[in-house]
Amino acid sequence: MDERLAKTIEALKASGADWGLITSPDGVAYATGHVTSIEAGPSPFAGGPCLAIIGTGGQCGLVVTNLEAGPPSWADRIVTYEGFSYKQPTDIFTNYWKAAAQLARELGLGGVIAIEEQSFPLSLLPLIERFSRVSIEPAFKRERAIKTGAEIELLREAALTASVGQRAFLEAARAGRSELEIFADIRLAMESRAGERLPVTGDLISGRERTSAFMGWPGNRRVAAGDPLICDLAPRLKGYWGDSCASAMIGAPSPGFLKLYSVAKSALALAAETVRPGIVIGELDRSLQDHVGRHGYSYAHHSGHSIGTSVHEWPRIVAYEQEPLKKDMVVMVEPTAFDPEIGGVRLEFMLHVTDNGCEILTDFAHQPEI
Amino acid sequence: MDERLAKTIEALKASGADWGLITSPDGVAYATGHVTSIEAGPSPFAGGPCLAIIGTGGQCGLVVTNLEAGPPSWADRIVTYEGFSYKQPTDIFTNYWKAAAQLARELGLGGVIAIEEQSFPLSLLPLIERFSRVSIEPAFKRERAIKTGAEIELLREAALTASVGQRAFLEAARAGRSELEIFADIRLAMESRAGERLPVTGDLISGRERTSAFMGWPGNRRVAAGDPLICDLAPRLKGYWGDSCASAMIGAPSPGFLKLYSVAKSALALAAETVRPGIVIGELDRSLQDHVGRHGYSYAHHSGHSIGTSVHEWPRIVAYEQEPLKKDMVVMVEPTAFDPEIGGVRLEFMLHVTDNGCEILTDFAHQPEI
Repeated sequence: MDERLAKTIEALKASGADWGLITSPDGVAYATGHVTSIEAGPSPFAGGPCLAIIGTGGQCGLVVTNLEAGPPSWADRIVTYEGFSYKQPTDIFTNYWKAAAQLARELGLGGVIAIEEQSFPLSLLPLIERFSRVSIEPAFKRERAIKTGAEIELLREAALTASVGQRAFLEAARAGRSELEIFADIRLAMESRAGERLPVTGDLISGRERTSAFMGWPGNRRVAAGDPLICDLAPRLKGYWGDSCASAMIGAPSPGFLKLYSVAKSALALAAETVRPGIVIGELDRSLQDHVGRHGYSYAHHSGHSIGTSVHEWPRIVAYEQEPLKKDMVVMVEPTAFDPEIGGVRLEFMLHVTDNGCEILTDFAHQPEI
Repeated sequence: MDERLAKTIEALKASGADWGLITSPDGVAYATGHVTSIEAGPSPFAGGPCLAIIGTGGQCGLVVTNLEAGPPSWADRIVTYEGFSYKQPTDIFTNYWKAAAQLARELGLGGVIAIEEQSFPLSLLPLIERFSRVSIEPAFKRERAIKTGAEIELLREAALTASVGQRAFLEAARAGRSELEIFADIRLAMESRAGERLPVTGDLISGRERTSAFMGWPGNRRVAAGDPLICDLAPRLKGYWGDSCASAMIGAPSPGFLKLYSVAKSALALAAETVRPGIVIGELDRSLQDHVGRHGYSYAHHSGHSIGTSVHEWPRIVAYEQEPLKKDMVVMVEPTAFDPEIGGVRLEFMLHVTDNGCEILTDFAHQPEI
């Protein structure tokens, strides 16, 4: 049994449930290994979200359309339904319902049912309305926070994919090019490494005004010498997200930018030195905020987050988080420094918490100049 | 009142409902003008899908996170909720529920409620469980099939964006380049026209084997002289999808490819000549299938579909569809021709059904050679 399925079952037990019905793309990828396509929104050929039914006895079933491609799942029962046919009329909503009902019947669903109620579609309520139900969320997020060996390797590949994008950023960002032109080269580098299209989120912004907002997708703005840039790249590879953020100035960096950059850089180094099992997360966040604040810059941002089949998972690196870091968490650390006269700088590492420290999964050099 | 809101209300009335709760991204975009970001899957900062509450009295309300950007909506009440905060702990699921409950209370939700039950989250059930409910789907798809004047203009822009991509395809597809490299140029051309990142679906496949499957996203395969290519581009711009498909051979096309291509081309011309209000859709499909079959090629595909805030809407151009075309439908026609020795060809137009014929919204030339 894949360890993720075993951990999903642990989450069910901790929730007091006998069965779990998982309906979020990240939850399904975690519990079954089945990765759904997300780049174009919900499929017009699906009668509802991809459904996983997990039993505390080890059962793992999946409902998908006959049109849905995806890497192999470790589900031991996959029920497909017709999502569209040019040959005869078909009702995809009824097909979905029937496939889900068939799987529930085959597996013998009953007892206490754990669900993700924010993505569980009302159409499936008749499957579970005679049973009592609980939320899987509080226990599921805790199980998912500690990554398995297979997940560490998947996250490493995703981190290396993001890193290829960051190296392409340094090659592509030249005065006179638009943000979208730079982003096209970056995306191509990441997708060529993967050999396929990838969902990508993050930010690519240039200039004082845009980097001051810290967030934004690329547009037609053309970068010029003296522009600060923030390049935050989060690609999803085989269901797992990588993440990374670089900041640099086009041409010779100004003294003000160099100072701002060096404060964020030393905060990042401080994070990499600090991260180890047992460190209280809120204290890590406050130490990074204090470091940047002592140098006179503001810090209007979280310091990071966990990552896995969702790009932004619990625990987040925020001042109010009282949990300690634990071995085999994979966390983004992304200290920022902001000067309204210059713009924003954010530098990020993807870190695997090891026995007594951390390993940097991303593989690119932070540098202030392009 | 925007005509789309008026048509949503017509769909509610036809469903026997007093209120509608819309939760699909395409439904929300249609009913309220609010476009949700879809490219990276469901937001980890949202407590559930964006919710629109529409009343037959003309009410239009919206629930979104405080982090959700989007173009202006014509909703007259927008309730935002906290999706994530680095300053204090927040429960986004509870925040979502409270925002939805507040909006429902303010608007005075009651009577018969129409929903999209495949995307309606179970977490919102308490809002509606004491009321009777119906599906909005059958009536909503009929109202949405006839486009408003504003929609025709949005779809025209989306078609022109796809067309820019098709022209870039002819520039970019050169022997020795990978499918992903070609796709990067295409995507950049479309995104530069739009000035922003765009969700894009479709196909980019090369060679006999891949084009024989008719579907697939680009990979690292390098195209060579003599390869057939299929380039199907569907970008979403301001919530509306454009679509298009071209097929061509790299280098001087073989006589066999030219014959295959010319049959698909004449089928496309036949479609453009035939499409007008009153034509029964199933008959249009059969006439295209017969045309291709008479030339000895097979046709394992639908002949097209409607398009709007969803990339693949009712009515589809399939043999079993008994509805007639109507003025102001916008339909894709995409006849195919397949020869197992050569590969697949699919050629597509985006057509606006006018008073007595149709207008081609896409603006690129089909040609057999690159």
